[in-house]
Amino acid sequence: MKRVTVINGPNLNLLGTREPEKYGNETLDEINGRIQAEASRLEAECQFFQSNSEGELVSAIQRAGVVGGIILNAGAYTHYSIAIRDAIAAVPSPVVEVHISNVHAREEFRRVSVIAPVCAGVIAGFGSYGYILALYALLGRGRHE
Amino acid sequence: MKRVTVINGPNLNLLGTREPEKYGNETLDEINGRIQAEASRLEAECQFFQSNSEGELVSAIQRAGVVGGIILNAGAYTHYSIAIRDAIAAVPSPVVEVHISNVHAREEFRRVSVIAPVCAGVIAGFGSYGYILALYALLGRGRHE
Amino acid sequence: MKRVTVINGPNLNLLGTREPEKYGNETLDEINGRIQAEASRLEAECQFFQSNSEGELVSAIQRAGVVGGIILNAGAYTHYSIAIRDAIAAVPSPVVEVHISNVHAREEFRRVSVIAPVCAGVIAGFGSYGYILALYALLGRGRHE
Amino acid sequence: MKRVTVINGPNLNLLGTREPEKYGNETLDEINGRIQAEASRLEAECQFFQSNSEGELVSAIQRAGVVGGIILNAGAYTHYSIAIRDAIAAVPSPVVEVHISNVHAREEFRRVSVIAPVCAGVIAGFGSYGYILALYALLGRGRHE
Amino acid sequence: MKRVTVINGPNLNLLGTREPEKYGNETLDEINGRIQAEASRLEAECQFFQSNSEGELVSAIQRAGVVGGIILNAGAYTHYSIAIRDAIAAVPSPVVEVHISNVHAREEFRRVSVIAPVCAGVIAGFGSYGYILALYALLGRGRHE
Amino acid sequence: MKRVTVINGPNLNLLGTREPEKYGNETLDEINGRIQAEASRLEAECQFFQSNSEGELVSAIQRAGVVGGIILNAGAYTHYSIAIRDAIAAVPSPVVEVHISNVHAREEFRRVSVIAPVCAGVIAGFGSYGYILALYALLGRGRHE
Amino acid sequence: MKRVTVINGPNLNLLGTREPEKYGNETLDEINGRIQAEASRLEAECQFFQSNSEGELVSAIQRAGVVGGIILNAGAYTHYSIAIRDAIAAVPSPVVEVHISNVHAREEFRRVSVIAPVCAGVIAGFGSYGYILALYALLGRGRHE
Amino acid sequence: MKRVTVINGPNLNLLGTREPEKYGNETLDEINGRIQAEASRLEAECQFFQSNSEGELVSAIQRAGVVGGIILNAGAYTHYSIAIRDAIAAVPSPVVEVHISNVHAREEFRRVSVIAPVCAGVIAGFGSYGYILALYALLGRGRHE
Amino acid sequence: MKRVTVINGPNLNLLGTREPEKYGNETLDEINGRIQAEASRLEAECQFFQSNSEGELVSAIQRAGVVGGIILNAGAYTHYSIAIRDAIAAVPSPVVEVHISNVHAREEFRRVSVIAPVCAGVIAGFGSYGYILALYALLGRGRHE
Amino acid sequence: MKRVTVINGPNLNLLGTREPEKYGNETLDEINGRIQAEASRLEAECQFFQSNSEGELVSAIQRAGVVGGIILNAGAYTHYSIAIRDAIAAVPSPVVEVHISNVHAREEFRRVSVIAPVCAGVIAGFGSYGYILALYALLGRGRHE
Amino acid sequence: MKRVTVINGPNLNLLGTREPEKYGNETLDEINGRIQAEASRLEAECQFFQSNSEGELVSAIQRAGVVGGIILNAGAYTHYSIAIRDAIAAVPSPVVEVHISNVHAREEFRRVSVIAPVCAGVIAGFGSYGYILALYALLGRGRHE
Amino acid sequence: MKRVTVINGPNLNLLGTREPEKYGNETLDEINGRIQAEASRLEAECQFFQSNSEGELVSAIQRAGVVGGIILNAGAYTHYSIAIRDAIAAVPSPVVEVHISNVHAREEFRRVSVIAPVCAGVIAGFGSYGYILALYALLGRGRHE
Repeated sequence: MKRVTVINGPNLNLLGTREPEKYGNETLDEINGRIQAEASRLEAECQFFQSNSEGELVSAIQRAGVVGGIILNAGAYTHYSIAIRDAIAAVPSPVVEVHISNVHAREEFRRVSVIAPVCAGVIAGFGSYGYILALYALLGRGRHE
Repeated sequence: MKRVTVINGPNLNLLGTREPEKYGNETLDEINGRIQAEASRLEAECQFFQSNSEGELVSAIQRAGVVGGIILNAGAYTHYSIAIRDAIAAVPSPVVEVHISNVHAREEFRRVSVIAPVCAGVIAGFGSYGYILALYALLGRGRHE
Repeated sequence: MKRVTVINGPNLNLLGTREPEKYGNETLDEINGRIQAEASRLEAECQFFQSNSEGELVSAIQRAGVVGGIILNAGAYTHYSIAIRDAIAAVPSPVVEVHISNVHAREEFRRVSVIAPVCAGVIAGFGSYGYILALYALLGRGRHE
Repeated sequence: MKRVTVINGPNLNLLGTREPEKYGNETLDEINGRIQAEASRLEAECQFFQSNSEGELVSAIQRAGVVGGIILNAGAYTHYSIAIRDAIAAVPSPVVEVHISNVHAREEFRRVSVIAPVCAGVIAGFGSYGYILALYALLGRGRHE
Repeated sequence: MKRVTVINGPNLNLLGTREPEKYGNETLDEINGRIQAEASRLEAECQFFQSNSEGELVSAIQRAGVVGGIILNAGAYTHYSIAIRDAIAAVPSPVVEVHISNVHAREEFRRVSVIAPVCAGVIAGFGSYGYILALYALLGRGRHE
Repeated sequence: MKRVTVINGPNLNLLGTREPEKYGNETLDEINGRIQAEASRLEAECQFFQSNSEGELVSAIQRAGVVGGIILNAGAYTHYSIAIRDAIAAVPSPVVEVHISNVHAREEFRRVSVIAPVCAGVIAGFGSYGYILALYALLGRGRHE
Repeated sequence: MKRVTVINGPNLNLLGTREPEKYGNETLDEINGRIQAEASRLEAECQFFQSNSEGELVSAIQRAGVVGGIILNAGAYTHYSIAIRDAIAAVPSPVVEVHISNVHAREEFRRVSVIAPVCAGVIAGFGSYGYILALYALLGRGRHE
Repeated sequence: MKRVTVINGPNLNLLGTREPEKYGNETLDEINGRIQAEASRLEAECQFFQSNSEGELVSAIQRAGVVGGIILNAGAYTHYSIAIRDAIAAVPSPVVEVHISNVHAREEFRRVSVIAPVCAGVIAGFGSYGYILALYALLGRGRHE
Repeated sequence: MKRVTVINGPNLNLLGTREPEKYGNETLDEINGRIQAEASRLEAECQFFQSNSEGELVSAIQRAGVVGGIILNAGAYTHYSIAIRDAIAAVPSPVVEVHISNVHAREEFRRVSVIAPVCAGVIAGFGSYGYILALYALLGRGRHE
Repeated sequence: MKRVTVINGPNLNLLGTREPEKYGNETLDEINGRIQAEASRLEAECQFFQSNSEGELVSAIQRAGVVGGIILNAGAYTHYSIAIRDAIAAVPSPVVEVHISNVHAREEFRRVSVIAPVCAGVIAGFGSYGYILALYALLGRGRHE
Repeated sequence: MKRVTVINGPNLNLLGTREPEKYGNETLDEINGRIQAEASRLEAECQFFQSNSEGELVSAIQRAGVVGGIILNAGAYTHYSIAIRDAIAAVPSPVVEVHISNVHAREEFRRVSVIAPVCAGVIAGFGSYGYILALYALLGRGRHE
Repeated sequence: MKRVTVINGPNLNLLGTREPEKYGNETLDEINGRIQAEASRLEAECQFFQSNSEGELVSAIQRAGVVGGIILNAGAYTHYSIAIRDAIAAVPSPVVEVHISNVHAREEFRRVSVIAPVCAGVIAGFGSYGYILALYALLGRGRHE
């Protein structure tokens, strides 16, 4: 059974409880629940982690990276955390970078991802459904390549 | 029945016939066939277009944009064609930007997409499977939101 | 009788049929009709050309440039088409650069015109009336200088 | 009766008396006379102001901006006077930016206009005839829109 | 009774114990005591938090942001923590950015604040008295607007 | 009795009479009146000066700088007037830079202050109340340092 | 017998008919004739193609690249056409970049070639004789290496 | 008899009365007196002008430029006043740019002179003696060339 | 007896267990053991600390900095952690920056160290032996100067 | 009889003796021999010079530039030696810039040539055969134009 | 008796023998003769040195810098030779930077002087007479300060 | 017996005789003596070379690079000599870059080393002791790896 770890970064713990017109009504728990359900349907196992701390995200990637794929929404750290980049590069698992919003349609600085060059791929702009697409990408990669 | 147009830009007509170790053995026709099959399963209808010409891609987006979603791999034009950007912004349909390779892991200039800010979202790095993910994204957006 | 060629670039074929609150209700044909009428009043002869293709615009400028003035709205190509710039520089006729909107009040990249240095002058921000002003500029140049 | 104020900035008081092969033989007074004549024909009333002082130009725009359109050739201040930009943005009248020469064909720094984003439009490169075109633009906007 | 949270970032725990000729003799506790005293006089309630960790500062802003104003000296994180910026933007309370020294008179990189655009305002250069001014700003905003 | 000079730069003479939804209903005279009142309460004496002219602002700073503190809202000149910067650096009095709006939340060019490095400190974003805070800062500096 | 394709880009169809003092009196046909003659002498076969369209140049490179060497003067596209770059990189034949004028002695933007990194080499500044040198380079490479 | 106008810009009226350890004890009047004395010895006539206002400096250059050489210390305006640059370029007299301090040894922004390209030459770093050298340069040019 | 603290940053806990062909077979513990042995030989006492968290590294530097020299490999934080820079600047002990690989031979962003300007010196490119050299540098500084 | 001087810059004395898989097996002497042979066939006379010293290369260009054409491979100095640029500009002979490798396919800094704007033309990427092509270019210019 | 060393850099040995319409008819020897004559009149002793080699110029500055003032025209090295800058900074004598032409009116790269920040002052644009002015500046500094 | 060449660049011949408070009292000869002594203790043989000339340093590296390790303090050339970089890259011996001062704590331009990417490693900031550390690094590399 394939193992997937879903890691969310800073401020994503606020999802659903604030600015619902912008980020939707789903809480992070509800999103994780939907991911879990879809993963189960595809016979994969999920683990979930969220932290506002860059260092804890580095550690979580280190732990997760040895046992399966990683779906990572690094939030604001996407744009400057070389520490997270190095963690991704150091682990053997493929990492899929996910963003809920289309980061390219926002402030200029959100268009730079320091982690993208060491990820397997990027999915952005499809709301919480992007996590499901990332799940397909991780599992689909196994099937089609 | 939902209609989706798949538009590929310059040099993507060479897929499968050249550098198979890098881009895989699938030709563009074979990829389009796989997209068509998955679309049919999801009760959607597909149209396909490829051109090396920026102007023809602009025209294709204009035509396609009034009747359904667009999956667009603009190839090299991604990085400088403001004409294509304007066409995307001018049509009401959502456009999903797709790249076969992870453009962020290549030359620096490939990290800039002038069209991403007016697309609905971006999918990059998952090989030809990215087109299927884009199909899910376009249809999933209808189902889940 | 003076001859003037009016050349419009990518996506300007959509004028009037889309986003009328932004670009007005006039189609490109109606605008061209108004230019023709004013030109006739001033005893000048007009020809009209529109294309989404950079190469065809280059060719149109080459053809038009040997017989009279050119009114050119190069659309998005304004910002990066050195090929169009070279065509303008290569023909003896004066070229007036026109933009319907005030490009300086939009995205940063629209403030750069690679063709302006080789045009006779620039008119921007006056809606479709800018084409009429360009007509006056081309004919007025003959009268006043 | 429509009121239009024509404001000229630094060194434009030298027009006609110096480098006639470059800027023509018309003095600023003669140009203003031509503008006045054309304005009268169009049943508009003109006022004229010239100063080498940035602060006086700011004040002139403040005064003029509440009663009608402004034709502004800010000369060198075009390229760095945020004070003039703020004055333009603060008054309700439309302001048309005019340049006698094609500023895009000169030094690189003359291609930047800090005031253009808050003007209604820009006319450059048509010699003193540009002021007449600006007059048409201000009045034409009223007639055609 | 209005509630204000005072949050200090990295290395501000060293205040008063080191380089007194530069940062003064007050410890952070003494400064907080003065803020508390002034707040009491103005019938407001204060809470205090300091951390060297970016993640903990994000969490502290999230907690504080739902119940009242925030006075934030983010220290070095001011210049690069988009995570803190996002936390500020996500909470409804106004945040006042404070710096003890005049950051504009120091190294060039200290002149950039990535959090200022989402704060209510900025106060810098008035020593520890800047916290008192921020308190006035938060409470004054309530009184005068 | 401490003497404070309040100097306002270009376009601030328009306060209160225009765009009240944005800048409030207070005129500059009313704001100055409030500052005077608060200064009197703190046993300080105020003088007020406003000009649209960079040169006159330089001269005003020269005059004021020898007798007491200066509260300076240099408006647009903040961003490029090295002449005002040099005047501030040349006078012995402390100068507090004030902005009514949070300049960091507006256009990019408003984030650069060429005068901040030679001011005592900066206060921005608190509306007209910022002048009162600057008054406290100038007087408070005397009391606490 | 070795096959060489000579591809010329935008505005090079105007050679010889315009500005002969700058570009010489030879038309493109005459230049091609000279190349053909020299190729025949060296027992090579030539094909010639010219287009103002970026897309057609991409297609021509794709067609030519599988059967022999390419001599390419991409004209203005040299400076921004990543599509042409990708076509060059995708075909197995060596491509020699040629420019009639010394592009380094002209406008700054002409000094950047986006295609040079994927070409075999570059020859610039020797007038139409540069095409003959490119022919020698393509054939000479075979002989000497 | 040759005529020379000595023009000083913003804050140079403060010379000698402030920071004597840095700028010396000479007032501007004393410096002008020394220049006058040396000019008399060389049978030249001097006029002196100082202003903090950019516009007045522009006007002074216009007036002086038609009758003889100009010695100009534009102070802070050196670094951004294109208006002064244009005035210099518009007058027939040679202009010598003078700086009391070595501007290259100070802040980075003081190393840029927007007026130097249109001046005859530059003298910087020799204290008030630089004005005397400029006088020699203006007169010496007449004698030695 | 001299005290030295060895502080390692993010992802350095992975040393030796991953990519041994690149980083060698030594674990961080083994490296620390070697440092300890050499320190003992030189009659110095070592303490060791590793963390993936920027905030904890700041705290560790604060603690260590008051009692002896610091050998710091800040890993990825080297390139952007102004918080760590400020901690180094705030403590009296000399800090030696160490990198296992030659950071200048890797990605461009690794060539920038925001902490180097406040360190005593830098040693990079000598593998784990660099820590030993840093030890010599810290102790040698005492012996030879 | 035409005279050609072949000048090689720093490190080109190492050709052939080091990294033969990269630079070929030919020594500089052997290459020079081949150039001499071809020159003799074309009835031209060659002189050869190599130095690692920028100053000696300047002197060699000065000496050679008055009697015939120069073939110059300035090696690393190509990218920063304005002294060599000035020497080329000062001599009347045409100078052909040659590079053995395609400098555009290497490090970014090798794409800048400070000497190219003052050379007659550039040849790069054709191995040692580039010197022969440069010879043809120098002589061919005489024959064909 | 004061000693002055006059040092000229690369290509200045060509003065007078080439492009006399641009650089005048004087050879470097003739210029040096004029400097010597004027120095004698002022009871100073001159030594002269010219080299095309950066290293020899460094050595010459080292030698000259311990016994008197230096007049230095570093030619092209002005713009990039940090080695010469360091030599100037290392010697106790004042160094006056001289340029024959107004370097600010030429190519952009000539506007940057890496040596100016460590020189006493700069004189540019007065032809060979600039050396005489530099002599006055060196000797005048002794008299007036 | 291992052979090590110690190469020092421009102005390092002045060590010890000038500014002893900054660079210490040791002359280069004394430093070389200390290096020799330590090398002898480690059974290595040293050769020493110093030059102010870039070209001679290139040649010295070429000579030294074939027989053993190189310790190189390239002085100012560190920041721009691509010729020295190419020499280092061309020789098989490892090169250790040494700086006496911490170059990162000085002017911004000293933070760029064009030679570091091709050196084995870098040691900076430890005074003349850095040469000894470099010796350890060269020899230690042999022992420990």
